[in-house]
Amino acid sequence: MAGGVACGVRGSGTPDLGLLFSGRPCAAAAVFTRNEFKGAPLGVTREAVAGGGLRAVVVNSGNANAATGRRGVEDAYAMQGAAAQALGVEAGRVAVASTGVIGEHLPMDNILAGIGDAAGRLSGDGAPFAEAILTTDTRTKEAAVRVEVGGRSVTVGGTVKGSGMIHPNMGTMLAFLTTDAAVEPECLQETLSRATEHSFNRVTVDGDTSPSDMALLLANGAAGNEPLTAGSPDYPAFVGAVEAVARELSKEIARDGEGATRLVEVAVEGAEDEETAAALAKSVVGSSLVKSAVFGEDANWGRVLTAMGYAGVPFDPDGLELWFGPVKVFEGAPVPHEVAEANAALASGEVRISARLDAGDASATAWGCDLSYEYVRINGSYRT
Amino acid sequence: MAGGVACGVRGSGTPDLGLLFSGRPCAAAAVFTRNEFKGAPLGVTREAVAGGGLRAVVVNSGNANAATGRRGVEDAYAMQGAAAQALGVEAGRVAVASTGVIGEHLPMDNILAGIGDAAGRLSGDGAPFAEAILTTDTRTKEAAVRVEVGGRSVTVGGTVKGSGMIHPNMGTMLAFLTTDAAVEPECLQETLSRATEHSFNRVTVDGDTSPSDMALLLANGAAGNEPLTAGSPDYPAFVGAVEAVARELSKEIARDGEGATRLVEVAVEGAEDEETAAALAKSVVGSSLVKSAVFGEDANWGRVLTAMGYAGVPFDPDGLELWFGPVKVFEGAPVPHEVAEANAALASGEVRISARLDAGDASATAWGCDLSYEYVRINGSYRT
Repeated sequence: MAGGVACGVRGSGTPDLGLLFSGRPCAAAAVFTRNEFKGAPLGVTREAVAGGGLRAVVVNSGNANAATGRRGVEDAYAMQGAAAQALGVEAGRVAVASTGVIGEHLPMDNILAGIGDAAGRLSGDGAPFAEAILTTDTRTKEAAVRVEVGGRSVTVGGTVKGSGMIHPNMGTMLAFLTTDAAVEPECLQETLSRATEHSFNRVTVDGDTSPSDMALLLANGAAGNEPLTAGSPDYPAFVGAVEAVARELSKEIARDGEGATRLVEVAVEGAEDEETAAALAKSVVGSSLVKSAVFGEDANWGRVLTAMGYAGVPFDPDGLELWFGPVKVFEGAPVPHEVAEANAALASGEVRISARLDAGDASATAWGCDLSYEYVRINGSYRT
Repeated sequence: MAGGVACGVRGSGTPDLGLLFSGRPCAAAAVFTRNEFKGAPLGVTREAVAGGGLRAVVVNSGNANAATGRRGVEDAYAMQGAAAQALGVEAGRVAVASTGVIGEHLPMDNILAGIGDAAGRLSGDGAPFAEAILTTDTRTKEAAVRVEVGGRSVTVGGTVKGSGMIHPNMGTMLAFLTTDAAVEPECLQETLSRATEHSFNRVTVDGDTSPSDMALLLANGAAGNEPLTAGSPDYPAFVGAVEAVARELSKEIARDGEGATRLVEVAVEGAEDEETAAALAKSVVGSSLVKSAVFGEDANWGRVLTAMGYAGVPFDPDGLELWFGPVKVFEGAPVPHEVAEANAALASGEVRISARLDAGDASATAWGCDLSYEYVRINGSYRT
C-alpha cells in the first residue's frame, strides 16, 4: 500500500511526504550513493535493511536532510519512529529517505504531521506516493512487469524520482521497487545490485551524484511462490522483470532530466567486455558538448569520438563505426553523408547514437538527455 | 619571432594561421592530450620534439585535423614541410598544431598559402600569433615573467588558446611557452610536466578533453646562461617563472571559458596530500550544478560538498570548513550566515570558494567558470 500527502516542506500544497507499507514483512535489498558525503537518512535505512524484514518506507521531498550534522541524524530517526508508530510496526522495520535542498534542517513539525496524515490515507494506488517524492521532476515515473515464477504470477513494480544531480557509476537517485514475489534476501540484493548496474548506473543528467541516492527493492512474498534463490529455474525471469522495470524507470529519469528536451540513448557494440562498452557509452552521454550539440540538433560527431577518447578505457578509433540514428558518419575516417539527415536524427524526442568497435562481442547502453538553457535556469535559481 | 595571418580556414578575414620561429635551435618539451583519440598533428609534433632542436611551430585554427584518417596525417606532414621550406629549416624541426572543428579535412591550399604569407611577416610582436590560434575564445591570452638565472636575465613567455572542450587531468589545450633561457632538454620536460600539473591540468570549462590538446615549451638559450639542470641553484626560480606563466594563462582560459561570466577559483587546504586536494578542488570546479549556481549567484553550498563527495578521494565531511568568498557556510554542520552575503560573494567577476580539511598540510587550487545559457547556445550551433 502507498500514500502521499502535502505537509508543507515544499509549500503551496505540493505533495512532499510519501509512505509505502506492506502487510507482511519484506525481504529488502538496497544500494546507496557512493558519494563520500551521505545524507542522514542513508545510515538509518542501511541499518534497517541490515536488520531484515522491512515493513515500510517513509520519504520526504523538498529537503534532503544532508549536511545537517548530528541533528539531521536525530531527525531521520524521528521520521522512522513516527512512521513506525503510525503504522503499528517496529521502528527498525522502516526505511527513511529524503530528497531536496542540502544543508537545511527538516521542518519536523510538518514532517511528523504529514506522516500521521499519510498513514491514514494508505491505499493500493501508488500515484500519490510517486508524486510525493518528486523535486525538480516534471512528472511521476512508474513501471511494472508481471512474470511467472514457480507457477505463480508475480508483479514487480517501481517508482523513482530524479531529474538533476544524476550521474551513473554511483548508487542512484531515489528508487523504490516492490514485488509480491518471495525471494531469499541475499538473492534479492544480488538482483538489485545487478539491475542497478544495468540501469540506474547508466543514466546521467549532469555528472553530479547526489548524497541522497538510494534504491530499495522490497519483496513481501504475497504471491505465494517458493522463495527464489539464484539457482531457481525461474530466477532469470525474475531478474529480467526487475531489470526491465529498472531500465524503464532509468529512461524516464533521463527523459525528464532537468531542462531536457530529448532522451539520448547511446549504444556501444563490439567491445572487448561490458565494462569497456559501458564506460564508452557513459562518457558520450555525459559530455556537455555532445549534450549541447543534441540540443542544437547539430550532428557534431567529432564530439562523440572525443568523449569516447577520454572515457578512460583503451579502444582503437581506426576500427570504429559511428551512427547518428540511421546515418553513418564515421568508419575509421569521416564517411560522406548528408549533414541535414544526420541533424534530423537529433531532432526527435528520442535520439540514438550508436558505435561499433571491432574488439569483441560485448555491448552496453547508457541514457541521458540534452543540455538546454533551461537546465542552467533551473540550477541558477534552485533555492530561490 | 612570431606571425599570424588569415588564410581562409575560419573565413571572413579572421586570423587562423600562426608561426613561431627561433633563430637558434630550441630545446623542446611537450605534453599531449591523454585522450585515446588524438588529432593528426600530435603524432607529427611528438616525433619532432623527440628529434630535438626545434626551430619553429606552425598552427592553424578553425579545423582540428582530427578524425581525418590517413589523409589527415599526410596533411599534418605537408604543413610541417611547407613551414620548414618557408623558414629555411629542416622539416623535422617544426612542430605542428591544429584546433577547431573535428572530422573535416584541412583546406590545404589555404593552409599552404597562409604559411608562406605568415613566414614573410614574422616579427618580435607575439600578438598576431596569439590571435591566429583562437577559436571560440573571445580574447588572446598571453603572459610573461622575467627572472635571474645564472646571472642572466631570462624571460619566459607564453600564449594559449582554449575556451571549450577544456578539462583537467589531461594534457591541456594549445599552449606555447617560450624562453631565452638555456635549459637541458630533460630538465625542460620535467619543468613543463610539473607546471602543467599545477596549472593547465587544474582548469576545467566543461569536462570535455580535446583530442588536439598540446603544450610546448621552447628554450633557445639566447640569454646566454649556463644551461640549467635540475641541480642548478637558479632552477627553482626558473620553475617558478614557468609555473607563474602557465598559471596565469590557465586562469585566462577559465575566465574566457565558453559562455563564462565569471572566473571561479576553488582552493582546498589541509589535505593529506596534494593529489587529494587537487581532486577535491577539480571536482567542485567541474560540477555543472556548482557552475550553474555561480551563474545564478545562488550560494548553494550543499552542491560544493556534494561535488567533493564524489571526487573519488576519501575525506571526512565532519572536519570540513567551507567558505564562499569571506562567508563561512559550513563547519561539520551548517553555519548560520546571511544568505545575501554569501550570494554576493558569487556576484563578482572572480569567485573564490575555499575548503579546509583537518587531514594535513597539503593544498591545491583549481580554476573554472560558471555555466551560462551562452555555453549552451555556443555549443548547440558550433558548426553552423
